[in-house]
Amino acid sequence: MGKLICAGLGPGDPDLISLRAHRAVTGAKDVAYFRKAGRAGQARRIVEGLLRPDVHEHAMEYPVTTEIRFDTVEYNDALAHFYDDWAARLQGILAARDVVVLCEGDPFFYGSFMHLYSRLRGKVEVEVIPGITGMTGCWTASGQPITWGDDVLSVLMGTLPEDVMQARMAEADALVVMKTGRNLPKIRSALQATGKLEAAYLVESGTMPGQRIRRLVDVEGECPYFAIVLVHGQGRRPEIAE
Amino acid sequence: MGKLICAGLGPGDPDLISLRAHRAVTGAKDVAYFRKAGRAGQARRIVEGLLRPDVHEHAMEYPVTTEIRFDTVEYNDALAHFYDDWAARLQGILAARDVVVLCEGDPFFYGSFMHLYSRLRGKVEVEVIPGITGMTGCWTASGQPITWGDDVLSVLMGTLPEDVMQARMAEADALVVMKTGRNLPKIRSALQATGKLEAAYLVESGTMPGQRIRRLVDVEGECPYFAIVLVHGQGRRPEIAE
Repeated sequence: MGKLICAGLGPGDPDLISLRAHRAVTGAKDVAYFRKAGRAGQARRIVEGLLRPDVHEHAMEYPVTTEIRFDTVEYNDALAHFYDDWAARLQGILAARDVVVLCEGDPFFYGSFMHLYSRLRGKVEVEVIPGITGMTGCWTASGQPITWGDDVLSVLMGTLPEDVMQARMAEADALVVMKTGRNLPKIRSALQATGKLEAAYLVESGTMPGQRIRRLVDVEGECPYFAIVLVHGQGRRPEIAE
Repeated sequence: MGKLICAGLGPGDPDLISLRAHRAVTGAKDVAYFRKAGRAGQARRIVEGLLRPDVHEHAMEYPVTTEIRFDTVEYNDALAHFYDDWAARLQGILAARDVVVLCEGDPFFYGSFMHLYSRLRGKVEVEVIPGITGMTGCWTASGQPITWGDDVLSVLMGTLPEDVMQARMAEADALVVMKTGRNLPKIRSALQATGKLEAAYLVESGTMPGQRIRRLVDVEGECPYFAIVLVHGQGRRPEIAE
């Protein structure tokens, strides 16, 4: 009976993979990863050149992405069947050998792996290897600490309704907004309403080739879905003597 | 002229260090790390057995910890001079060679390194290597995803006033509370008031020997300062077919 290993791969730079995840990836005979149909997939891209030549690859292609609104019955059904199906297929492989699921960032932080985990937990042995989150890669790339002292950090999804987003933004000292893309105008508007727009940065492809960091006020239009908006905290700290 | 490299070491398990940080640590001729006087220090403990035999170690011992309240002038002055002094000493070493500062977790996430960074930035070359945060190690250890769908995650310090803590807890879907220790009774009270106590976990020594995970309702008294309280989000997800 094999083990299901989920390897958190970190924010994108393969050099930021942990020792344990690196061993799991380079030794794997079966790897599985999520991706949009017709795309390479971010997790797969991170491990390019690291896999065994005889590895079996299982690309788990989402049946829907943005064609159906996520709050519809159709979307829920399509996704539920997709995860059910892949859980069953991986369980079949696991009867014979280990499977390593590749996940960008950290698997338990807004990751798709948890949908397999909730279906296979208790049925097969599972090991989850944490990873550096995408947001951690982005705030490091920004060259500024995200939080000091007693700062409250809030992590928000760009998919939230604008009134909820705005209320949460008003209360936080430091902010991370993920799932940006077409939500960027809404995010910008909520930041403006809470007086935080001037302090906001947009980080695209953090830690990866093509990394780009701009003040959000200098950005026009939309951005890639995985770009992250940051507002750094300015909390308590001992003064710097001049 | 040497380079100041800050290596984020992750949550505690040395196997969770990134490839890049591992190279920096094992190759270092000079390492510096913060610790309480008379203690081994968490960052130093993580790299036990990894350092060169001829490494120069610079233990940066905090002049005060809990003897002086952090909101006093005395505390601010003592810390400010401490960071000024070590920034100057490291700058002296950097004139000749690289220095690797060891940091548990991620350097830009509530870390002490940022006090050196703010003093030396622009004067010397600096490289910051992100790490897996302590909270990521803890939620992985808890065996449950911390966030799903559109969950709002808020990270709070146990040092916050109870009314502020309670207000922030009320608004979040998923919670991480750090700097627990003697603040645990206050944290418990705020969780109780917001109806989240039953769902809260206390994780001590996450990913390390002695790791211990309990429901917070089963914990009496205080806990170590670095223990972390978690409330997992229960956000939107496709249903599991039965």
